[in-house]
Amino acid sequence: MDVISVIRTKRDHGRLTDEQIDWVVDAYTRGEVADEQMSALAMAILLNGMDRGEIARWTAAMIASGERMDFSFLPRRTADKHSTGGVGDKITLPLAPLVAACGAAVPQLSGRGLGHTGGTLDKLESVAGWRALLSAEEMRQVLTDTGAVICAAGDGLAPADRKLYALRDVTGTVEAIPLIASSIMSKKIAEGTGSLVLDVKVGSGAFMKDLAQARELASTMVGLGTDHGVRTVALLTDMSTPLGLTVGNALEVRESVEVLAGGGPADVVELTVALAREMLDAAGLPDTDPAKALADGSAMDVWRRLIAAQGGDPDAALPVAREQHVLTASASGVLTGLDAYGVGVSAWRLGAGRARKEDPVQAGAGIEIHAKPGEQVTAGQPLLTLHTDTPEKFGYALAALDGAIEISPPGTAHQAPPIVLDRIA
Amino acid sequence: MDVISVIRTKRDHGRLTDEQIDWVVDAYTRGEVADEQMSALAMAILLNGMDRGEIARWTAAMIASGERMDFSFLPRRTADKHSTGGVGDKITLPLAPLVAACGAAVPQLSGRGLGHTGGTLDKLESVAGWRALLSAEEMRQVLTDTGAVICAAGDGLAPADRKLYALRDVTGTVEAIPLIASSIMSKKIAEGTGSLVLDVKVGSGAFMKDLAQARELASTMVGLGTDHGVRTVALLTDMSTPLGLTVGNALEVRESVEVLAGGGPADVVELTVALAREMLDAAGLPDTDPAKALADGSAMDVWRRLIAAQGGDPDAALPVAREQHVLTASASGVLTGLDAYGVGVSAWRLGAGRARKEDPVQAGAGIEIHAKPGEQVTAGQPLLTLHTDTPEKFGYALAALDGAIEISPPGTAHQAPPIVLDRIA
Repeated sequence: MDVISVIRTKRDHGRLTDEQIDWVVDAYTRGEVADEQMSALAMAILLNGMDRGEIARWTAAMIASGERMDFSFLPRRTADKHSTGGVGDKITLPLAPLVAACGAAVPQLSGRGLGHTGGTLDKLESVAGWRALLSAEEMRQVLTDTGAVICAAGDGLAPADRKLYALRDVTGTVEAIPLIASSIMSKKIAEGTGSLVLDVKVGSGAFMKDLAQARELASTMVGLGTDHGVRTVALLTDMSTPLGLTVGNALEVRESVEVLAGGGPADVVELTVALAREMLDAAGLPDTDPAKALADGSAMDVWRRLIAAQGGDPDAALPVAREQHVLTASASGVLTGLDAYGVGVSAWRLGAGRARKEDPVQAGAGIEIHAKPGEQVTAGQPLLTLHTDTPEKFGYALAALDGAIEISPPGTAHQAPPIVLDRIA
Repeated sequence: MDVISVIRTKRDHGRLTDEQIDWVVDAYTRGEVADEQMSALAMAILLNGMDRGEIARWTAAMIASGERMDFSFLPRRTADKHSTGGVGDKITLPLAPLVAACGAAVPQLSGRGLGHTGGTLDKLESVAGWRALLSAEEMRQVLTDTGAVICAAGDGLAPADRKLYALRDVTGTVEAIPLIASSIMSKKIAEGTGSLVLDVKVGSGAFMKDLAQARELASTMVGLGTDHGVRTVALLTDMSTPLGLTVGNALEVRESVEVLAGGGPADVVELTVALAREMLDAAGLPDTDPAKALADGSAMDVWRRLIAAQGGDPDAALPVAREQHVLTASASGVLTGLDAYGVGVSAWRLGAGRARKEDPVQAGAGIEIHAKPGEQVTAGQPLLTLHTDTPEKFGYALAALDGAIEISPPGTAHQAPPIVLDRIA
């Protein structure tokens, strides 16, 4: 087997054999296939595609590159959620304790933000003392004790994916559906969850800009999960405007706690409950009502125990950024657009996100949203409050909002899209 | 400027701007753009193409990455030839002294073999004492004294191409017409020749397997040369069967000397004279008859002076391989096929070529051809003699000839294609 023949096969619109896929993924993980060879192959895959059989084998090869976790020791059924990433997407924070409160076990391996989308671990690290890095033993213990755990994936899980993801990030080969699907699913299958709900975001703030692409990605992933014995369902959800009223690490924790306390923005509550229903259904608990667990405080109880079990203080004050800047409405009328991508990039520039993987994030940085699309606004009223510890970045962050806010004449009808656009099982 | 946006532009079927091309070629040469980024871009170029304007700019950027030579000090007009590479293609050896004997100056920067095609420098190094590496001063001196010089290109010439070529070789991105054309032409234009004749090979033993592809490559290169003030013409020539009766380093030198002595195989003589006529025409010497310079010994005189000027002994016996194996005709009839690729791979495996750039070649290894397509053969008569210093490789070399020899029933009509298939000016 040689790598050039593998690259040529895909380059010339051929189908990779099982042997070619197994060999190239293993040889890349071992360093026998060089980065410049894998990136050429990744570009050929991006441009020429892979069929379902190739994607399934590629995913299996990435799983086989590392260890697999096993939660069969738990008395509860496991359910996990993965979001393809959005702006203001803090759903994991209320969702994991909510589903645990309803009786499933939630082993949630999460990531960090990169680019304009935030990461669950970055958000939770704004809680004083909270630790993302757990040993396998600690992870099992927290999961057993609280019903949920949210932590970083260990190095042993799908190391081929770890290496390939970093490579794709610097070679313009991120946007390949076969590689996105196999990357997500190899980690989730290796993680050993029994069921999985995928939140596939669609819109300007998401990775997939149109519904057809998102549907293709979702159905590919559902097929992969099902083939590996994981009950998998996908919701396609709107990411044309930020989720909720906050974007940024500590700001999003605050909003998540509001949801767990029975309040919070309607869209965040709606999506949290919809995803919880799917997870409970997939875990064989279809009769449990997650809305009740939000109302009666049981989800909040799990949250507090979960935070404490990972070293965090659920009662500690959240960090606040040193400087604020308020952006006001330039006219009176109807807010008809608040672009997720523009808001995401602005929050990123304020310090909520990072430019390189090694960079730190600011816990307090981000954006508070005072009006959502469809609402009436009056000239001069606050629309957004920008938060940062580095106020010299305000100009740069405001530039990202150019064209992101659309105010239409008073009386303009505006129908915001539903949160859940479609469901693929 | 950032490399990911450049990669994405080409990946998404866009046109690279002049600024993007200048920047990415320069940044890659300096090491700011990494190999894995350039290989992803190369694959995107291979699959999505570049238009003539992009190719011209890419070529100019590669020329600008290094120094340019200047032969305007010479009293003679300069003419150079480039072959895209074939099996048994020793044409440079008789051609350079022949054209010099006819009054043009021939600054021939040549390469080494890689894969199943041989390299001019490897062939000449089978002449005792001959040196491929000359300083710029030595090169000018040999050219001034003998009218020709055949040597390796210095490191300063188009370093971007040197780096990119090595990368393409290991990433399955060699076969991209924009990159082939810009690679060849950047070196030839930087070399400073006034006119250039391209020998674009077509057929199983060539890089371009079909005429349409070869024509596209040829016309791209002719356009690039013309745009840079180099009088450029291309001949498309047949490479379905090896050129001449020898494949291998010393074996091809011997055949070249036969041609210079007024003999040699008809196809080698025909192509040598055809290319010489084009070079002389491009150099403003249309009335000179190269056939006469072969017949009267003046080309041989230049050859002897040229070899001696580069340290070689034109009278030294050529190396002979330690072992021979004769392959005979399996049936009587008409030889209707002797596949260039099969013969090239077989000679490569015998030791005439190298697997990696660092490997040595065997001077004596190769194949002698005793019958050419169209000739009558009798069962048991010798068809090929295989030469090697490593006889354990005979089996492996013979395997490459499986299916390469086609003998048809006696009386079968066989029309070999002409040597020169087309001309593009």
